[in-house]
Amino acid sequence: MKSIFRFFVLLVLLGAVVKPALSAGSDRDIIFQTAPFQSLSVGVYDGLFQFASLKAHGDFGLGTLNALDGEMVCVDNAFYQIRQDGKVLPVPDSARTPFAVMTFFDEDQRIEAVNAGSLAELGRIIDRIRPTKNLFYALRIDGTFDYIKVRSVPPQKKPYRPLAEAVKDQAVFEYKEISGTLVGFWAPSFAGKVSVPGYHFHFISTARDSGGHVLDLRFRALNIQMDRCYALFLVTPENGDYFSADLEDRPGSIQSGE
Amino acid sequence: MKSIFRFFVLLVLLGAVVKPALSAGSDRDIIFQTAPFQSLSVGVYDGLFQFASLKAHGDFGLGTLNALDGEMVCVDNAFYQIRQDGKVLPVPDSARTPFAVMTFFDEDQRIEAVNAGSLAELGRIIDRIRPTKNLFYALRIDGTFDYIKVRSVPPQKKPYRPLAEAVKDQAVFEYKEISGTLVGFWAPSFAGKVSVPGYHFHFISTARDSGGHVLDLRFRALNIQMDRCYALFLVTPENGDYFSADLEDRPGSIQSGE
Repeated sequence: MKSIFRFFVLLVLLGAVVKPALSAGSDRDIIFQTAPFQSLSVGVYDGLFQFASLKAHGDFGLGTLNALDGEMVCVDNAFYQIRQDGKVLPVPDSARTPFAVMTFFDEDQRIEAVNAGSLAELGRIIDRIRPTKNLFYALRIDGTFDYIKVRSVPPQKKPYRPLAEAVKDQAVFEYKEISGTLVGFWAPSFAGKVSVPGYHFHFISTARDSGGHVLDLRFRALNIQMDRCYALFLVTPENGDYFSADLEDRPGSIQSGE
Repeated sequence: MKSIFRFFVLLVLLGAVVKPALSAGSDRDIIFQTAPFQSLSVGVYDGLFQFASLKAHGDFGLGTLNALDGEMVCVDNAFYQIRQDGKVLPVPDSARTPFAVMTFFDEDQRIEAVNAGSLAELGRIIDRIRPTKNLFYALRIDGTFDYIKVRSVPPQKKPYRPLAEAVKDQAVFEYKEISGTLVGFWAPSFAGKVSVPGYHFHFISTARDSGGHVLDLRFRALNIQMDRCYALFLVTPENGDYFSADLEDRPGSIQSGE
């Protein structure tokens, strides 16, 4: 492993070569993940990746915190923790996460005045308008939601249980006529156990006092902003429980568990 | 999308933040892929990624060329095409690839004086000594191989057939007592259809006159160099057949087809 300094020297020296290379997975259109989703599924909850470092990889994202202590949302470069008791707290730079998905959000496409009667219907609407199902997308919806049902999860103790077990203790909150931001991602099916398959949404209220992992919703006349991404940058832990985890066969779903 | 210039300004301004972020998927320990393997499996063979750009992502790698025109090996920053007729040619910077895997090779671990009676046995030997199956690895073996069986594939014409069909026309070459370099990668099973699952080896002779995708081998007393990688950087095509390809269900294997 060479030093980061030498890496930047290399970047400067190879400027002409680096430019076309990076343009293929362009500078801001990268989905960054701190770990494969499969490791969270099987219960690798130790947070090895610092939030201070996440900021270099995006201003928009979602995930969880060390020991699965709640849901995480990042909007406009600010990170929030939604605890199982429903409280929302800003995330300190020193906190760590076992799983987060980040990007720099840039609107490439907008779908105006959408009505969605459910989370499943929202998925079908986006399915119809995206240019291909073979890219990664970030999705953002701002406005007042008629209804939203979110959940958060309690912090876990070692030995950690798999995610499907841990979410059995989730707390579910329902809100009506609530203003906020929906933060979402879509991963192609080939991403398999690397990413959360399909759509994955977290919510944070404009008042920054409510939110969580979205289980259902209903809204009228809101705009969907879509950011097409052309790269996935997955990092893996360099030590810890990740090394001995069995990531082979156990299926896990964060959509279920309610 | 912002300009690459603004990206570098951002890198400089955020130096302190970027440093810990990149160290988690450290500067040279990144497996770079030009596309998910699944797209090659289903027949997306148009080369959209230029070899000139690949150099920014590694000095060691493997893959194929535009239209599946042979096997590609990169050793010590030099790219070679092994055509179906067995001829080996240097790859011009202007050539393009639909699928390549690259990294900057740094030896983290060495297994000395290994004897392997088959490709499968080589896999079992590496299985036993790698610190975890949950990382991506690059593997390099230099020396004289008692026996090696390689294949190459013929260039395809549109409409492209899936890879499992295309490799039915492969040419197979067997060599004895041949000096060369084995270039390989290992991807964890969670990488699924993003990567070639398990081990994947290409070979190039020291004389740069023979090589291909490795089907079998036998060697004695060679050293295996292992490079642990802590990140996968997958880019996806930004246009072309990739957008309309069905990447969902068709299984493809590059190990079979013989």
